[in-house]
Amino acid sequence: MKFSFRPVEGAFYDLFTQAANNLVKGTALLNELALPGVDVQSVSERLTDVEHDSDQITHDLYKKINSTFITPFDREDIYSLGSQLDDVMDHLEAVGNLLYLYGLTELPSLPREMHELADVLDQQAKITADAMPKLRTMKDLDEYWIEINRLENEGDRAYRMLLVRLFSGEYDALTVLKMKEVADELEAACDAFEHVANTVETIAVKES
Amino acid sequence: MKFSFRPVEGAFYDLFTQAANNLVKGTALLNELALPGVDVQSVSERLTDVEHDSDQITHDLYKKINSTFITPFDREDIYSLGSQLDDVMDHLEAVGNLLYLYGLTELPSLPREMHELADVLDQQAKITADAMPKLRTMKDLDEYWIEINRLENEGDRAYRMLLVRLFSGEYDALTVLKMKEVADELEAACDAFEHVANTVETIAVKES
Amino acid sequence: MKFSFRPVEGAFYDLFTQAANNLVKGTALLNELALPGVDVQSVSERLTDVEHDSDQITHDLYKKINSTFITPFDREDIYSLGSQLDDVMDHLEAVGNLLYLYGLTELPSLPREMHELADVLDQQAKITADAMPKLRTMKDLDEYWIEINRLENEGDRAYRMLLVRLFSGEYDALTVLKMKEVADELEAACDAFEHVANTVETIAVKES
Repeated sequence: MKFSFRPVEGAFYDLFTQAANNLVKGTALLNELALPGVDVQSVSERLTDVEHDSDQITHDLYKKINSTFITPFDREDIYSLGSQLDDVMDHLEAVGNLLYLYGLTELPSLPREMHELADVLDQQAKITADAMPKLRTMKDLDEYWIEINRLENEGDRAYRMLLVRLFSGEYDALTVLKMKEVADELEAACDAFEHVANTVETIAVKES
Repeated sequence: MKFSFRPVEGAFYDLFTQAANNLVKGTALLNELALPGVDVQSVSERLTDVEHDSDQITHDLYKKINSTFITPFDREDIYSLGSQLDDVMDHLEAVGNLLYLYGLTELPSLPREMHELADVLDQQAKITADAMPKLRTMKDLDEYWIEINRLENEGDRAYRMLLVRLFSGEYDALTVLKMKEVADELEAACDAFEHVANTVETIAVKES
Repeated sequence: MKFSFRPVEGAFYDLFTQAANNLVKGTALLNELALPGVDVQSVSERLTDVEHDSDQITHDLYKKINSTFITPFDREDIYSLGSQLDDVMDHLEAVGNLLYLYGLTELPSLPREMHELADVLDQQAKITADAMPKLRTMKDLDEYWIEINRLENEGDRAYRMLLVRLFSGEYDALTVLKMKEVADELEAACDAFEHVANTVETIAVKES
């Protein structure tokens, strides 16, 4: 028999959902960077604020794990899922921060493939936010995994084509190195969304 | 008491063995790239085919985990081992794909240390394929771990010497950046074989 | 009821403490590299010796896991903690080795931010060494996690500012690439200390 104290369980699902909703804010800010005449410093600062919110949510989650006797699923899995949602945000914040620090937004335009990657992240964030409340019933999560994986493959392709462009001779070596750092954080964010999905899958496998 | 339904268990060992045999095909293709006058596009495409086969095997493995009541060892470990075997293939495929995409095979020759790394991968693939059927009895796996670790150290040394060569001034900056990407994927494949071996070790520790 | 055979348990805590003390030796050697007129080859070789000592400790730990019937906490967690302490050392050794191999110490001076990173690592090593004996009682570990995370954030900032300097045009492209490799290993060592702390936290969550 499995005990279930709904009010306490509910707090966990709420925190996961909050964390994922925060990622949607993060990817929306990244996509603002593509707009002409955008104030890059302001976007980068707002990303840092959103990242601090994520840290707070993760902290609340860990406190909740430590103060709850019966958790809706394994403590370690709750812990993993929380830290992986936090990882995504760290990469999103890094993208904004590096674009600003390296002065890359002063270029006439960023490579098209960077915008494609930011768009993939936006889609991943939205379907992750939609999936979190479904942890409660563990139902209808298959589509989420399939779609996250499809998007991660799409991100991989965009990343590869971005590198081909960066190495084409269109930019000088130092600009290439700077853009490569940003590209790597974008790709790491795509992967990090997949890690979240894999942990959700692991949890579902155990519960089924 | 431990239940054991041999026919079902057998399916897991078969899938691990298939996945590892597929890696042997992958490293053989990488080593073809060293041959003079090789058709790089064709090798890269065959690598992509082999990578798709790996995805199918991994998919079958996950379906088997979900549809099997009693698994030969922890579900999570089966899951980890499957995904780590799949990771190796992803890196192998990336090597072939990047060499082709960046036009690196048009150089008079690739650095000797790259061929050394490809050779290490070939050895790792073969002993991994030999080890997988031994999961059934958990016997004689010590040699496999020791050898994988020795090869990983050998790969590390080759990788380090490859970077020394790349940074020596022999190549222009953009060519260095392209080769560095390929070098990183080769090294990640070496590491990924070690992760497979570490998971096998973890399983053996639990079962012993 | 929880069995507890103190003499055997003690061996595990001793090995973790030895491994962490070895890391203190490693970061002290890294900081020697900042001294004027230092013999870089000699420091690099002593780092390699310290790294071999770590390998031996890790090996002893694994043997102890396999030969002990009742372990003070989950076998897999002991295994993870041991391998993560070993990972830190691998990155420390790589820093010294790459500085030597790439001839970077022949430059008039290394960027200030590299020394800042080495200093962060030194602090992380010391508090990790102080924390290991506390695994015995699981008491007073909160400060350790908080401080490791604070230091990791400090290291992240120093790393980011280091990249800004490397990409500023002060150095030629190949020197930038070499220093970037060293910077990445320094940052990976900072992260690896955080992974150690995360595993300690996971263990504490389970035991509490």
